Amino acid sequence: MPHDLYDTIHRRRDVRGEFTGAPIPDEVLERILTAAHAAPSVGLSQPWDFVLVRDADVRRRFHDHVETERRTFAETLEGEAAERFARIKIDGVMESTLSVVVTYDAQRGGPAVLGRHAIADAGLYSVCLAIQNLWLAATAEELGVGWVSFYSEDYLRGLLGIPGEVRPVAWLCLGPVSHLERVPDLERHGWRRRRPLDTVLHADKWGNPREVVLDLRG
Amino acid sequence: MPHDLYDTIHRRRDVRGEFTGAPIPDEVLERILTAAHAAPSVGLSQPWDFVLVRDADVRRRFHDHVETERRTFAETLEGEAAERFARIKIDGVMESTLSVVVTYDAQRGGPAVLGRHAIADAGLYSVCLAIQNLWLAATAEELGVGWVSFYSEDYLRGLLGIPGEVRPVAWLCLGPVSHLERVPDLERHGWRRRRPLDTVLHADKWGNPREVVLDLRG
Repeated sequence: MPHDLYDTIHRRRDVRGEFTGAPIPDEVLERILTAAHAAPSVGLSQPWDFVLVRDADVRRRFHDHVETERRTFAETLEGEAAERFARIKIDGVMESTLSVVVTYDAQRGGPAVLGRHAIADAGLYSVCLAIQNLWLAATAEELGVGWVSFYSEDYLRGLLGIPGEVRPVAWLCLGPVSHLERVPDLERHGWRRRRPLDTVLHADKWGNPREVVLDLRG
Repeated sequence: MPHDLYDTIHRRRDVRGEFTGAPIPDEVLERILTAAHAAPSVGLSQPWDFVLVRDADVRRRFHDHVETERRTFAETLEGEAAERFARIKIDGVMESTLSVVVTYDAQRGGPAVLGRHAIADAGLYSVCLAIQNLWLAATAEELGVGWVSFYSEDYLRGLLGIPGEVRPVAWLCLGPVSHLERVPDLERHGWRRRRPLDTVLHADKWGNPREVVLDLRG
């Protein structure tokens, strides 16, 4: 049993409050980005790009934008949900060492991307696989990652000069952390609990409980 | 340096032709699915489901559908590209031990999914993160995974009885393999080569070469 991989997968957290801002050694960043770039991609199109954002002014402007989006979301909440949300930190843009913006270029590898003719979003899916590689590599390197999703794609395009045909997929905060929490922030703050695995498993057809599978395997 | 994770990330392949059909021990499948279910998700919504498809008739019907989609794509190709594509195996649905269909339920965790108000696709991204966890766990367990993307989402919905509001994201073939190829199939068959990492890195703004980053870090 490959203990290390499972340990990394289960220790991984979405970090907001624990970034220290300490430097990331060059060779560590190189390994993490190389891991992201080694992800599978539809038709071997590798349709991702990574913008490494260190500039403090750019990060400050993004953080301000995130705060605006936060207020927009907060206004949709009432009562207890609103109170819970008020306690939750949603980004570590200013405290983390580095931000990595990950994008999707649908033109790459075109016009005939093998495996994408039937499913237009398959290229977008590939970008997400690269993000998870990055996230796990960072976790194994004892760094934290926080995916910030309170932003408008058009705002981010303008901020970083991303061409119109390229889609921002994620703003990731990256860097050393004081520690990784054992329980996800949203669960600790009572926002939502994780579901048991069995509730998302189906055997052969949607809605067949997983026990059927165990019987078949018996 | 966490050798094992990087080894798994770089050994991972998209498998078509190397499945043996040998059984997967229950405890191995459990670890792999548990790893997928431990992925990060927007607002802790865990919007994925996994349909474990063993039924030979269902798999045969899906494989026939894939062959139809393959012909549709082949008709868009000419000359050398058409010849290269003719040599490429695009699925191992019948030879692999098990298929895992991964879906996205946008209703889960709603109506106010924290972090999804600005980016409607954020839930879809979460599902892909779970897929990459599954893929890496399988690789670490010495199994192969092949993502089949030559299908129509509506066909797959009908085949497995997936509700209209749930979106199929991936059909994954899973199982023991004779070996994992060192070079991706599409590169071995001359379809496409992998890009150097430097071509997808930008410093602070889109289009700034990565050297600028190294200087800043100096």
